[in-house]
Amino acid sequence: MKKIYMDHMATNPIHPEVLDAMLPYLKENFGNPLSLYEDGIKAREAIEQARESTGKLINAKAKEIIFTSSGAESNNFAIKGIAFALQSKGKHIIISKVEHHSVLNTARFLEKQGFAVTYLPVDNHGLVNPEAVRKAITDETILISIIHASPEIGTIQPIDEIGKIAKEKKILFHTDGVASAGNIPVDVDSLNVDLMSFTAHQFYGPKGAAALYIRQGTRIVPLIYGGIQEGGRRAGTENVPAIVGMGKAAEITMRDLQKRIDHITPLRDEIISAALSIDKVILTGHPEKRLPGHASFVVEYIEGEAMLMMLAIKGIFSASGSACSSRALKSSPVLISIGIPIHLAQGSVVFSIGEGTTKEDINFFKEAFPAVISRLREISPYSGGWEATEDSTCTVKK
Amino acid sequence: MKKIYMDHMATNPIHPEVLDAMLPYLKENFGNPLSLYEDGIKAREAIEQARESTGKLINAKAKEIIFTSSGAESNNFAIKGIAFALQSKGKHIIISKVEHHSVLNTARFLEKQGFAVTYLPVDNHGLVNPEAVRKAITDETILISIIHASPEIGTIQPIDEIGKIAKEKKILFHTDGVASAGNIPVDVDSLNVDLMSFTAHQFYGPKGAAALYIRQGTRIVPLIYGGIQEGGRRAGTENVPAIVGMGKAAEITMRDLQKRIDHITPLRDEIISAALSIDKVILTGHPEKRLPGHASFVVEYIEGEAMLMMLAIKGIFSASGSACSSRALKSSPVLISIGIPIHLAQGSVVFSIGEGTTKEDINFFKEAFPAVISRLREISPYSGGWEATEDSTCTVKK
Repeated sequence: MKKIYMDHMATNPIHPEVLDAMLPYLKENFGNPLSLYEDGIKAREAIEQARESTGKLINAKAKEIIFTSSGAESNNFAIKGIAFALQSKGKHIIISKVEHHSVLNTARFLEKQGFAVTYLPVDNHGLVNPEAVRKAITDETILISIIHASPEIGTIQPIDEIGKIAKEKKILFHTDGVASAGNIPVDVDSLNVDLMSFTAHQFYGPKGAAALYIRQGTRIVPLIYGGIQEGGRRAGTENVPAIVGMGKAAEITMRDLQKRIDHITPLRDEIISAALSIDKVILTGHPEKRLPGHASFVVEYIEGEAMLMMLAIKGIFSASGSACSSRALKSSPVLISIGIPIHLAQGSVVFSIGEGTTKEDINFFKEAFPAVISRLREISPYSGGWEATEDSTCTVKK
Repeated sequence: MKKIYMDHMATNPIHPEVLDAMLPYLKENFGNPLSLYEDGIKAREAIEQARESTGKLINAKAKEIIFTSSGAESNNFAIKGIAFALQSKGKHIIISKVEHHSVLNTARFLEKQGFAVTYLPVDNHGLVNPEAVRKAITDETILISIIHASPEIGTIQPIDEIGKIAKEKKILFHTDGVASAGNIPVDVDSLNVDLMSFTAHQFYGPKGAAALYIRQGTRIVPLIYGGIQEGGRRAGTENVPAIVGMGKAAEITMRDLQKRIDHITPLRDEIISAALSIDKVILTGHPEKRLPGHASFVVEYIEGEAMLMMLAIKGIFSASGSACSSRALKSSPVLISIGIPIHLAQGSVVFSIGEGTTKEDINFFKEAFPAVISRLREISPYSGGWEATEDSTCTVKK
């Protein structure tokens, strides 16, 4: 069967050079990096080399990189870590309405612990207005956290401008860079960020390795207490093979990033024009300020899950922008935030491509996607209209 | 050079069958388990099979297993998760003085958030008295957390008896089973525990995969918020290869555990008698109620780090029971708690053996260890006496 993987935002295969770098640490070099004998020292050195490469990917110093296990962990660590470190200074946090659930739900947890959270609205392209950030700042504000690029709608935020405001107001600024770092050039200095989350499997590294960039001199409370790993800021025996893999993936990405972008951007544009030539298909997110490999849409009168399934039968593996597709039966807050009505948000789809995507894949897509939509519209009970339930779940009129 | 690995408490090599099970998920089966297409579904099924096997290892149901990234994460999750879930009911927690740093430092964090923590003393063998647990319980107590087996001194606690008391008093009971699960038979029901942390690399699984057992019906607040992975209790893209590895390692351990115990226990006993025949070497921890592969000592007039280094030169890889060896320059609270004076605690060493340890290794050890001690005592500036500094660091009289 044909298999066209168009879900690079969800995860990526491990680059063969990355796996080669990992294998010795999955086999003979299994030592604990805290040990004082040869095998441990070797593991420790490998981690420090990975830290160096991982830092370089975002123009950070090695010592500003803390390895974690996932982007979600990094986001939780950043936000709770700063909140608990600075709670005596103030208890107000600013985020946007288009954050990933790992930021959104962490903010909600902090509300229960007595923090106040401002959820900034976005425009129809999903952009946060930097001036709105400025206006939201109070004497109590200790942290601003705005996502760099949206995995759902691809929009890239004006992080540098928001960062400038945060800097001016002397407020710590975190960005969720999970969808950006490794996919577009990222420089923590020019972005003016103090903390940034990012993850290896977004740039052909392994699952289980991610990082939080913490600008030198930033006080933070650990999320995971314990031993002295990661300078006492993140405990737990280091996942050496995965960390080594992240370092190698960062190194390769430094080398290949521009080539990857040059390869996928025109293919992505083809997807967009092909999709928009179909009746009642709307592009979500910003038309230009978007991730190079990211094309996202809502398709009227189609239920997202059925669309994904039918695409999968044809061999096209894609995702729904809403968590609705991905086994969580709720409408996407991101799509609602950019003004997509609930009944349309159900028909969302994201095609995200990568370095392995070919011109032939796109040609196949251009045939298959319109065919899937026609077929579904023919058989769909929904083309007669949706009935949104009160709790915004995906239940539809039968 | 000879290499005798006697640091199985720190970490273990991955079993070859485990690596074989992991490899497809490091290569072609890289799909995101939340996806709805074939590759994602395959990953999801692999995770659920791993959950089943991992649960069986400790006699738990699959749905009671939440995968995490490390024992430290599981401990943080358990303790903060219950504390934040039940804080309206009470704010008192009971732990022992011989907990791992991931429990100890989490308790200290909670103290800063307004919780009260009782740190129970232990006897000279490191045992907690169950009746002391009973006495420490107040109307405010919401959680008891006692380590199952100590990685530093090998002592196995009477968890079942403590659990009986917790059950009777209707207080949730967590045990840090990182050093026990996979090394001795563990049954969460007969231990009467509601939560248990454990980690794959303790039983020849990979680093980066661990679990928290949460008894069905137990309310807990996530440590890592985000997506709906792990039933919404632990977010982050699943580290599929590592989780699959943990499942496989659990399966193999179920099969091989008794054989492993039968193999290492007499070897461990040989280590103990050889070491105790040396002048001024003291066994730490319980003489019988201890982990089968665990032998720990304090050696008078010897500085632990020098001992580890010299043993490593001879090819014996071991650890100091105190974190002192492992790059953290503090005396071990565990050794202090069992009444070892600070100056002796500096000379601690742990030999932990595994299924690969041979009779020849032990014979070599029996020659090498006394020789290392004699040599160090000859050249040691410390044999003239220690001068403990006020903050109990390892600084010694020059």
